[in-house]
Amino acid sequence: MEFPLLSESILWGALSEKGRAIYQPNGIFFWAGRAKKEAKIIGTIGAIVGPENELLEGQSDKMTTFYLPSLKNIVSENPADIVPYAPIAGIPEMRTSWQKWIIQKGKNAKNLPSGSMDLTNKITLPVIVPGITYGIFFSANLFLNPGELIVSPNKRWGNYDSVLSRQSGAVISSFEMFTQGKEPEFNVAGMIEKLEDSIKKQNKAVLILNFPNNPTGYVPVKETVKKIVIGLDELGTKYKKPIVVFCDDAYEGYVYHEDSITVSLFYELVGLNEYIIPLKLDGSSKEMLMYGGRIAAVTLGLHEKWYLPENLEEFTKEIENKFQAVIRSTVSNSNRFIQSILIKMFEVGIEKIIEEREKIIDIVRERYTLINKLLSEIKSDAISIDPNQGGFFLLINIDKKVKASDFNEHLLKKYKTGLIPIVKEDQNINCLRIAYSSIPI
Amino acid sequence: MEFPLLSESILWGALSEKGRAIYQPNGIFFWAGRAKKEAKIIGTIGAIVGPENELLEGQSDKMTTFYLPSLKNIVSENPADIVPYAPIAGIPEMRTSWQKWIIQKGKNAKNLPSGSMDLTNKITLPVIVPGITYGIFFSANLFLNPGELIVSPNKRWGNYDSVLSRQSGAVISSFEMFTQGKEPEFNVAGMIEKLEDSIKKQNKAVLILNFPNNPTGYVPVKETVKKIVIGLDELGTKYKKPIVVFCDDAYEGYVYHEDSITVSLFYELVGLNEYIIPLKLDGSSKEMLMYGGRIAAVTLGLHEKWYLPENLEEFTKEIENKFQAVIRSTVSNSNRFIQSILIKMFEVGIEKIIEEREKIIDIVRERYTLINKLLSEIKSDAISIDPNQGGFFLLINIDKKVKASDFNEHLLKKYKTGLIPIVKEDQNINCLRIAYSSIPI
Repeated sequence: MEFPLLSESILWGALSEKGRAIYQPNGIFFWAGRAKKEAKIIGTIGAIVGPENELLEGQSDKMTTFYLPSLKNIVSENPADIVPYAPIAGIPEMRTSWQKWIIQKGKNAKNLPSGSMDLTNKITLPVIVPGITYGIFFSANLFLNPGELIVSPNKRWGNYDSVLSRQSGAVISSFEMFTQGKEPEFNVAGMIEKLEDSIKKQNKAVLILNFPNNPTGYVPVKETVKKIVIGLDELGTKYKKPIVVFCDDAYEGYVYHEDSITVSLFYELVGLNEYIIPLKLDGSSKEMLMYGGRIAAVTLGLHEKWYLPENLEEFTKEIENKFQAVIRSTVSNSNRFIQSILIKMFEVGIEKIIEEREKIIDIVRERYTLINKLLSEIKSDAISIDPNQGGFFLLINIDKKVKASDFNEHLLKKYKTGLIPIVKEDQNINCLRIAYSSIPI
Repeated sequence: MEFPLLSESILWGALSEKGRAIYQPNGIFFWAGRAKKEAKIIGTIGAIVGPENELLEGQSDKMTTFYLPSLKNIVSENPADIVPYAPIAGIPEMRTSWQKWIIQKGKNAKNLPSGSMDLTNKITLPVIVPGITYGIFFSANLFLNPGELIVSPNKRWGNYDSVLSRQSGAVISSFEMFTQGKEPEFNVAGMIEKLEDSIKKQNKAVLILNFPNNPTGYVPVKETVKKIVIGLDELGTKYKKPIVVFCDDAYEGYVYHEDSITVSLFYELVGLNEYIIPLKLDGSSKEMLMYGGRIAAVTLGLHEKWYLPENLEEFTKEIENKFQAVIRSTVSNSNRFIQSILIKMFEVGIEKIIEEREKIIDIVRERYTLINKLLSEIKSDAISIDPNQGGFFLLINIDKKVKASDFNEHLLKKYKTGLIPIVKEDQNINCLRIAYSSIPI
């Protein structure tokens, strides 16, 4: 497998050694695909296939992937929606539906500096993966060598340290997420400084951002987004080195504050600067409220300077081969049933999904409003609440005199209230995370 | 996280550097677990939870993980079987059911040198993972450093090269799977030689075996199993270095030849020798005919010399922590719905599963018998069929004068017959794989 177009593009300099070397051999899929079209006798598929009435009396003689007959008694779904393998990168309809969903989210966006965004023809067809955690692992696989730096706010999902550092061997370069003072703001300067440091050390930078943020609930407003975007753009232009941005959009859409952006930063990064490589990681866990479904998507934002217009199809084929190679070499493919459900949901209509979700977002917004109101009534210098505008959580900073885990123990014992303490002394973190999303009003 | 017992056992010497370093921090799960038991107000869970009637009129006020109401129109299943996260290592009932299933398979085993085997208390509780491909990736993650050797027959699933070599960075040390001559046999001597070579080079050996084998369909008979077991046992005793055996049992149970072992080699390896570390990778894709479900299990066979009897629980907790750490740092957890289905299937009863599967195995056996009969009638020195006794495939070796891919093209064009050619000149392979499992009689 050769990558003549990809290897000539800016992306190549961003890929890890593994990302450059890995490829998905096409042999078996090439022949299986041709057999499907050209053959009468198909002996390519590693599954048991036959006329359904050979398996179960009373069924038709339609060719079917065999299933255990008890399955029909346990669920009323069609075994064909559960049993066969899904393609490596997802069921084609699922992929096109998710692409439309991403485009629609951009069109509906509020408070973006550029207004609403139409990403038609500006993003790859999403590859379907088993959850956003996997999407982060996948992105690290392709873009980070062991020992390389990835920039992240100090307030981040705890599992980043597992996925990026302990699993992928990258080094997390933390910046203080918020500026100090009475009115803390997202620390754009601190972020840019760390990125600059990365570029100087390794000729590329990798950044992971997660808005709405876990654990703080932070979502930037338009002015802050502008600062971030300008900062990244200037960095790209100044150093002419790749800056990869993993947009962890797990909580996309859960925004309660009226001035915050309602969608991912990704929308502002696509096409921004040829040195900026934005990856969108979003999925059904939170957006479609199917946590246990483990279906997410990875989508690359394209820049027109990466390829000649006539090469776009070949160029994206090369990217797709790399993406498939990572999936095939770790999980093979993602589960069919949840993809089938999602395809059917999209058939019901994006408007319906948005409408149903809006009602749920309203319920969480009420909880958000109430808890912030109650917390604001506590007049004490011993605690401060991080800026929070969306997502499922908020974060209370506790004076260092009391260890957050001790305080949590106290709340649990005395008030029967269960929260999550986060204590990282080396990163100046002594906090309690409240998942108000799971506390009824 | 400390591993005082594991680090004193033979297993430690087998772990990769990552396997030794990785751990699952217990903080968030410790506090979430306590909140579940001790709290009235639970603000630990990153999901939207509330009384169901807040989401949908006419429902009860039972606390529910919120779902999109359309889900109820799309599937008739209970959202609680689809929507909530499953625990990292699987739903507890799924894990205990799968453990019982493994034990039952051993009790029903035929043609094992040791007779049927009862593995009660001799294996860990399986961890649930998204498919056996992932199980192989997972095992490599824990037991292979980049650059280390893993021994495998030259005739193997093509994806081993992706998972083990291109993804995990290991080096596959291939041995010729069969001896030469009119009556080819599994090349035990060749396998042992490669393992010995590994031990000398890296103070440990890792082996992957897959019976019934993809692509050949090979399943050993009792006498051959004896030779393999004795060879491994002697190697352990002679060198006193860990020998890890990944048992890829994807096709377990699909055995059509009456003298072949009906279960995995794993059963003979558990407790065999303190230096032999057997990992069982099995799953629902083929065994329960749910390819698209992506639910498999990883189970470690225990040896009593690895721990003091009073430490067994703590010892397996340390192993579980390592296993969970790999899952959490790559995919977080596995999909709930297929686990729910499997739990219900096991409630219907193992006997029922076996009975239904037996009927399907009989259908495939007919295809197996017929295709082998037809192939045996071809009198030509230009082809030879590898020994095949089970699984979904068989393999035809083609004389080197004709490239298997050219021959496959010919079959496709002239006879509308689609097969998979496998050509690896450096490994002496020029074959056609026939998936007779997917060709009705």
